[in-house]
Amino acid sequence: MDSPNPLDSTQFLQQQLQAVVALLEKQELENSLVRKSTSSHHDLEEALVSKQHQVRLQEKMSDLHPADIAFILESLPLDQRQTVWNSIKSDYDGQILLEVSDAVRQTLISGMEEEELATFASNLDTDEIADLAADIPKRAMLKILRSLNNQERTHLKTILSYQEHQVGALMDFGMITIRDDLTLKAIIAYIRKLGKLPGHTDKLFVVDQYNIVKGVLPLQRLLTHSPAQHVAEAMVTDFVKFQVDHDTADASRAFERYDLISAPVVDKQGRLQGRLCVDSILDFIREKTDEDMLSQAGVEEDEDLFSSVWKSARNRWGWLLINIATAFASTRIIGFFEDIIVQLVALASLMPIVAAMGGNTGNQTSMLIIRSLALGQINADNVRRLIKKELTLALLNGTFIGILIGMLSWLLYHDLALSLVISSAILMNLLVAVVVGLSIPLGRYKYGKDPAVGASIMLTAITDSMGFFIFLGLARLFLIDR
Amino acid sequence: MDSPNPLDSTQFLQQQLQAVVALLEKQELENSLVRKSTSSHHDLEEALVSKQHQVRLQEKMSDLHPADIAFILESLPLDQRQTVWNSIKSDYDGQILLEVSDAVRQTLISGMEEEELATFASNLDTDEIADLAADIPKRAMLKILRSLNNQERTHLKTILSYQEHQVGALMDFGMITIRDDLTLKAIIAYIRKLGKLPGHTDKLFVVDQYNIVKGVLPLQRLLTHSPAQHVAEAMVTDFVKFQVDHDTADASRAFERYDLISAPVVDKQGRLQGRLCVDSILDFIREKTDEDMLSQAGVEEDEDLFSSVWKSARNRWGWLLINIATAFASTRIIGFFEDIIVQLVALASLMPIVAAMGGNTGNQTSMLIIRSLALGQINADNVRRLIKKELTLALLNGTFIGILIGMLSWLLYHDLALSLVISSAILMNLLVAVVVGLSIPLGRYKYGKDPAVGASIMLTAITDSMGFFIFLGLARLFLIDR
Repeated sequence: MDSPNPLDSTQFLQQQLQAVVALLEKQELENSLVRKSTSSHHDLEEALVSKQHQVRLQEKMSDLHPADIAFILESLPLDQRQTVWNSIKSDYDGQILLEVSDAVRQTLISGMEEEELATFASNLDTDEIADLAADIPKRAMLKILRSLNNQERTHLKTILSYQEHQVGALMDFGMITIRDDLTLKAIIAYIRKLGKLPGHTDKLFVVDQYNIVKGVLPLQRLLTHSPAQHVAEAMVTDFVKFQVDHDTADASRAFERYDLISAPVVDKQGRLQGRLCVDSILDFIREKTDEDMLSQAGVEEDEDLFSSVWKSARNRWGWLLINIATAFASTRIIGFFEDIIVQLVALASLMPIVAAMGGNTGNQTSMLIIRSLALGQINADNVRRLIKKELTLALLNGTFIGILIGMLSWLLYHDLALSLVISSAILMNLLVAVVVGLSIPLGRYKYGKDPAVGASIMLTAITDSMGFFIFLGLARLFLIDR
Repeated sequence: MDSPNPLDSTQFLQQQLQAVVALLEKQELENSLVRKSTSSHHDLEEALVSKQHQVRLQEKMSDLHPADIAFILESLPLDQRQTVWNSIKSDYDGQILLEVSDAVRQTLISGMEEEELATFASNLDTDEIADLAADIPKRAMLKILRSLNNQERTHLKTILSYQEHQVGALMDFGMITIRDDLTLKAIIAYIRKLGKLPGHTDKLFVVDQYNIVKGVLPLQRLLTHSPAQHVAEAMVTDFVKFQVDHDTADASRAFERYDLISAPVVDKQGRLQGRLCVDSILDFIREKTDEDMLSQAGVEEDEDLFSSVWKSARNRWGWLLINIATAFASTRIIGFFEDIIVQLVALASLMPIVAAMGGNTGNQTSMLIIRSLALGQINADNVRRLIKKELTLALLNGTFIGILIGMLSWLLYHDLALSLVISSAILMNLLVAVVVGLSIPLGRYKYGKDPAVGASIMLTAITDSMGFFIFLGLARLFLIDR
């Protein structure tokens, strides 16, 4: 089960997937043949064929890593996914459930009995059970809780007590703790007695009698330092540690910055609570960036590629409704100027360009600000410089784009006043766009909210409305009834 | 120098940054006082004050990790950045240059002498020099090359021979290789003799006489297995390895999937070429996602927060020009229908909503496809199902949104025919949007191009033009000259 593929993993996974699909199709065919058969042993035949298929699927999957099986399940349409899952699930523990995405996990769990789920969870660590907790039905969860010992139950409750974005929610308990008055030789003997270290153990945590972390002992030093040395001499005392209630995004930046593999997690008093590892950080970064990208496009949460049309529709409607509302606001602004559009219909042709240019430049500004905020690069000292720079840029771009489009519109309509109006409208809307592009993320950040969420929707709504308003307003002032 | 902060890293960094800014401001003040002084020892005074500042900055920075200094440099405006860099650079090697972003690195390197750069590089590993190579001037690079020994030079050339997206470009050479006929005891003695292992060494690579990788020996096993065992018995033979010319995006998925810390990189014959570590993978993922997000918003490459207005303008112009072109295309389509807009001016008010709805739904589809392609979940078997699902969804959404907006427009204009036209136009444009949202990323992927690049620009250009065309076209057919 623990044998990841040799060489190119994507190619390997595609081959495995194709093999499974081929098996499933063969099975489909045989099933239909049996169904058509008029033999008197019809039921027996069907049971036999079905058993054969199950064995074949189990064989196919038996030497795959749980993450690879998860990939195959995710890539299969709902009905095939269920067939494969039903055939193989009895051979596995909850690892596969951990590896699939939230949306797919729900489809797998929904078909499982409480009893099955409780058995599944029995081989998982408490931090892994915590990852699944949100998707497991209450009654199955109670069964799982009863099967845990006291320490495990405390661990589980601890993790579940933290919010999703806090370090405490992402930690595990696979740390090895030692005292600083032992010799390295004693530690090596201790490890040999343990027989196996938890995954990602690159260092041991040195604690005192109050469980306060005094240092860390890298495994390397166990091998390179003299066995007679005491832990206190060999340990590293300036190490990175995290507090349970710290932001995971900050922690992930620290992992990148200091090239960490694992680090202790402590409470306010410095007492060891758990361990944070680079594999959890990798998963966190991937989930966060996927979420950001999807939310930019107005998809609320991760979608199962093969979820029902209704479910997908619900997932995409929130944003579409907001967009209908903002698009209608623009409509009303244009409606207010319908009289002048009738007098000068070129306005109708040209107005979308004013809105579009505002949206584009505003998005560039806001995305750079969002990124710099995420990097922690923006602070009270430099924010004024930044605003000044972006405004100068908008002035420069606005003038240039304004003149360019003014010239193009002159080529089309040979109306100098109209060209001047569109040039000025573009310049003004670009200034509006930059102000909005700066203030939405900076404002949300100031009030402790994620600067990226909804930035693009709100920005485009404002630059569209303002673009139409400025352009048509200027036209009313300077072009009509000349 | 190697003492990362305790506890909250972001807060810590902000404090360090503020302290540096305070120092710089004090320095500014003292300089201006000295300049105003009429003392006869004017020059001497100035030199003295300047020396003091340098010492103070050096003290401040001396116990910071290179990554922290890089952060401070990135957060400082250009003039202050240069002051700090000039004061401290002599104390450091190239690590800081490695940690800053590409844009900021250029500002730091541009002010350095060839000689300085060569000294800087002298403490770097060859894979680190390779990271800097693109930004180092040719003549300095030649100097650096001359200072390397034969093996280092070969290593450097190897890395530089791979393309940016290939595993070979990201590997390092910090691997420890062993033979399988030795005992663990001999290996432990060997490591003790080495005294220090390269960072991220969680396993040793077992090679034969042809340098072909036969297995890996996790450090853990050195501690838990009997020292009398031979490497051949203790080593893991089913391990993940990567080929030099494989795609780094695939490799990063494998690191996530199998929770790797390091893995061997081999050539086509299976001979060990280098090592891939999780810290490089983390950096790669961060860079790639930043790049994707910025390119979505039309920013060509990572921007130094404090680069000159001209430089920023150039970075953002490429996309703006494309947008001017596509926006003008829409304008011409509307221009073609100006006669009917004059007859029914409500069309001008309503047309942006048709375009906007198409853009939004198309972007949702295309973003989900881009993500699924990145995950490797889309293949020949399921692509047809996927297309069917998205088309059904567009039909459903189009009908619903169409009716909703038709009703809203009836409330505004009390024109049933107009409501029917806008409802149908929205349904049709949503179908167009989904077809385009599917075909752009799938098409680009099929021809080996990054499916994400420019997807949103092209999509919006098409849904805008088609939205206007369909809506105004239907209006001409059914509403005018009734």
